[in-house]
Amino acid sequence: DAFVTAITSQGEDYSRWYLDVVLRAELADYTPGLKGCMTIRPYGYAIWERIQQLLDARLKATGHVNAYFPLFIPESLLMKEAEHVEGFAPEVAWVTHGGKEKLEERLAIRPTSEVIIGTMYAKWLQSWRDLPILINQWANIVRWEKVTRPFLRTTEFLWQEGHTVHETEPEAEEETLKILGVYKEFVETELAMPVIEGRKSDAEKFAGAAKTYSIEALMGDGRALQAGTSHNLGQNFAKAFEIKFQGRDKVEQHAWTTSWGVSTRLIGGLIMVHGDDSGLVLPPNIAPYQVVIVPIPRGDWRETVLPHAQAIKEQLVAAGVRVMLDDRDAYTPGWKFAEWEMRGVPVRLEIGPKDIEKQQVVLARRDTREKQFVPMDGLSVYVQGWLTDIQATLLARATQVREERTHYTESYDEFKTLMAGARPGFVYAPWCDDADVEARVKTETQATIRNYPFVAPSAEGKTCFVTGRPATVMACFAKAY
Amino acid sequence: DAFVTAITSQGEDYSRWYLDVVLRAELADYTPGLKGCMTIRPYGYAIWERIQQLLDARLKATGHVNAYFPLFIPESLLMKEAEHVEGFAPEVAWVTHGGKEKLEERLAIRPTSEVIIGTMYAKWLQSWRDLPILINQWANIVRWEKVTRPFLRTTEFLWQEGHTVHETEPEAEEETLKILGVYKEFVETELAMPVIEGRKSDAEKFAGAAKTYSIEALMGDGRALQAGTSHNLGQNFAKAFEIKFQGRDKVEQHAWTTSWGVSTRLIGGLIMVHGDDSGLVLPPNIAPYQVVIVPIPRGDWRETVLPHAQAIKEQLVAAGVRVMLDDRDAYTPGWKFAEWEMRGVPVRLEIGPKDIEKQQVVLARRDTREKQFVPMDGLSVYVQGWLTDIQATLLARATQVREERTHYTESYDEFKTLMAGARPGFVYAPWCDDADVEARVKTETQATIRNYPFVAPSAEGKTCFVTGRPATVMACFAKAY
Ligand SMILES: [Zn+2]
Ligand SMILES: [Zn+2]
Repeated sequence: DAFVTAITSQGEDYSRWYLDVVLRAELADYTPGLKGCMTIRPYGYAIWERIQQLLDARLKATGHVNAYFPLFIPESLLMKEAEHVEGFAPEVAWVTHGGKEKLEERLAIRPTSEVIIGTMYAKWLQSWRDLPILINQWANIVRWEKVTRPFLRTTEFLWQEGHTVHETEPEAEEETLKILGVYKEFVETELAMPVIEGRKSDAEKFAGAAKTYSIEALMGDGRALQAGTSHNLGQNFAKAFEIKFQGRDKVEQHAWTTSWGVSTRLIGGLIMVHGDDSGLVLPPNIAPYQVVIVPIPRGDWRETVLPHAQAIKEQLVAAGVRVMLDDRDAYTPGWKFAEWEMRGVPVRLEIGPKDIEKQQVVLARRDTREKQFVPMDGLSVYVQGWLTDIQATLLARATQVREERTHYTESYDEFKTLMAGARPGFVYAPWCDDADVEARVKTETQATIRNYPFVAPSAEGKTCFVTGRPATVMACFAKAY
Repeated sequence: DAFVTAITSQGEDYSRWYLDVVLRAELADYTPGLKGCMTIRPYGYAIWERIQQLLDARLKATGHVNAYFPLFIPESLLMKEAEHVEGFAPEVAWVTHGGKEKLEERLAIRPTSEVIIGTMYAKWLQSWRDLPILINQWANIVRWEKVTRPFLRTTEFLWQEGHTVHETEPEAEEETLKILGVYKEFVETELAMPVIEGRKSDAEKFAGAAKTYSIEALMGDGRALQAGTSHNLGQNFAKAFEIKFQGRDKVEQHAWTTSWGVSTRLIGGLIMVHGDDSGLVLPPNIAPYQVVIVPIPRGDWRETVLPHAQAIKEQLVAAGVRVMLDDRDAYTPGWKFAEWEMRGVPVRLEIGPKDIEKQQVVLARRDTREKQFVPMDGLSVYVQGWLTDIQATLLARATQVREERTHYTESYDEFKTLMAGARPGFVYAPWCDDADVEARVKTETQATIRNYPFVAPSAEGKTCFVTGRPATVMACFAKAY
């Protein structure tokens, strides 16, 4: 066990590369006897904790509070909103027995919580003075999936789901878009993952929503990943669950609701946006460890080198840097270099007897593999500078890759060629907004409309790239996870 | 809706008082159609978030990391540890269908995670070098309970569960006791809830444990609440799930494991230890809001008073105080005073036009109801002093109440009289450690052994208070939740 097992290269088999990284970096593991249920291991969970911490602060800063609603949804409740049932019923896990007794009514394990939360909101809401209700929940979710992949699609996953209630339609729409903006800023700033904001086509929108918006990221293999969604639910759920209030005009009326979420899927995105053939590459803002210190074991290094390594660790920790000091005896420095590189730690710090003599350390960047001697004096400031630079470099690099793989076409033939390519990317095309044609494009090319981007060339005066009919919107297509 | 609905007094009906506080303070609510499943509302969940934050920091400081394991346990796995099955099978919720398909094997929703985590540890553990494994999980748990009460006993609840693996028996025992100590320090320091540490009798120990330790608190009605447990699982689970490793001697051997947890039950404890006839009383360290500012609306108060109230809020927030500024127009100051008192906010700050003239504010303490004029100059320091004092006062008061309701007896007749009293409290008694007699005491008096306290009078030379046989241990009895 003295060497890091090689991981499959991206070029050889991207799917295999992904699974190798997940397992070898100890982000997650399969659970015996539970197909599709992953265990999130401590290193993967530490990334999720960072995501929670950084996003939760943003949600609180925009006036949201957290709560916790039941895991179960009685079958009769789930049936109340027709489109919602149709969308989720096929993938619901059902509880039928409690202890030895058969339940009178089956309970669904939440595949999402609009129904149970809507039921509570109906109970709580009375007057326009109670509005808006701005509640978020961090929870586990179960969807019975046939084909699963760690983080990207699992039977159980973790997420946050916001559920808000508003007095008017414009306020609900404002909230829906505000959250989409929070997601974009969060994902780009902290995960260094550039995303395209836009509205989903009717075919791709959430079951029961009036409008769904999404942020879409491009993975290393040229496929898209939906990284977050925000739904304006109109009055659909308010009517199905009687979420009503007495308005300013004293008249009872249905409220306007929204819901929105991001999940552990983001970790899958992180892996695929930044990872390379050596494994994970973590943006400093989200990395469990930003710096790994590897002492070089010469002579009685535990007496000579280790105390310096520990002092450096303390100095960096005091400066707010997350540090791992790998002082294990059982592994060589070379093994440790490869191991922490595979685990994506942004900066490696090497220190040996000669460095101590010269009052310096060696720093190595995971992203550019640049190595540099740096004086111990002023080290924390230097390291922090590197971390900031790595964060920015990763975002810039991912943005550049995305730009290179983003195309515009007005020709379906060219579209087909692009989608048949090795790393297809995003294709913008003028579109007539017809669900039947959308289905046909999916069948013929596997590509789906990711969204109608907020920022895109105008469709004005263009014709649909498939049908030649007048285009009403610019659509962004991709093969997606 | 302009007045706070009265809550039942403790003396009239303690149970009703408890439910009134839970519902009126908006800590939790019943969920229509889901008996025994509570919704934790934002104010209650904010308390849980404080508990999570403060306890999680302690668990990390003692070397533990977080992870996430599946919600489901295949039936065949759950059956592997005999005592464990017997203890939990009657209260397991079973999933039998995924979508429209019947599952080949039923899945239990975790009633606790020893089984699924043990399965993963067996997969991960190879060498003594991998030990100890120190993992904690924050998760939801389902136990199909017949009689439920918000926070105290609910079908679904939230908790943390630590699961550790060790090389030797003494190390497992050391971990078990270390965590018990962490729990005691945490609950006493942050929740101001004094607890008795001790070992559980065999009858009361965790299903599958070698030894269970607990911390026990005394509620306002003289009943005990088990506030946390720590289990030394010996090699029981290691043998059932093959958690093995190659030892220093190269010989394969079974590991030693522990598990431990505290849950949303702690919130029930908080309510009952500190609450009074006016409602909740929250220790400052755990209170979502430590200070509520109520501006007195005279004249054009939004122009004259409110800006000062806002400035004070900012000043307090900058000093690290959690503040709610209640500037709602729809409610009178009197209503707000009663409302926030009922919600247990430690300090109320009133500010009106006259106060501004005199450069002062009025502070009122929730615990002692003391009111005082305090100059605006140096206000944050003053408030922080009060918060520290309130925290200490609540612990001292709860400790005093517990001492007053703690008795020692060597007579079963006296014991029965004590247990038949209105607020029975803890009774220490010399004990022969016989499960049959323990069952008889429970039947006859409803009292159970809470634990064998670490700190107690010696049983040496005493005789059992029930049987007259030689006592082997001092037991602490109480009627319990
Ligand atoms: Zn078209
Ligand atoms: Zn006895």
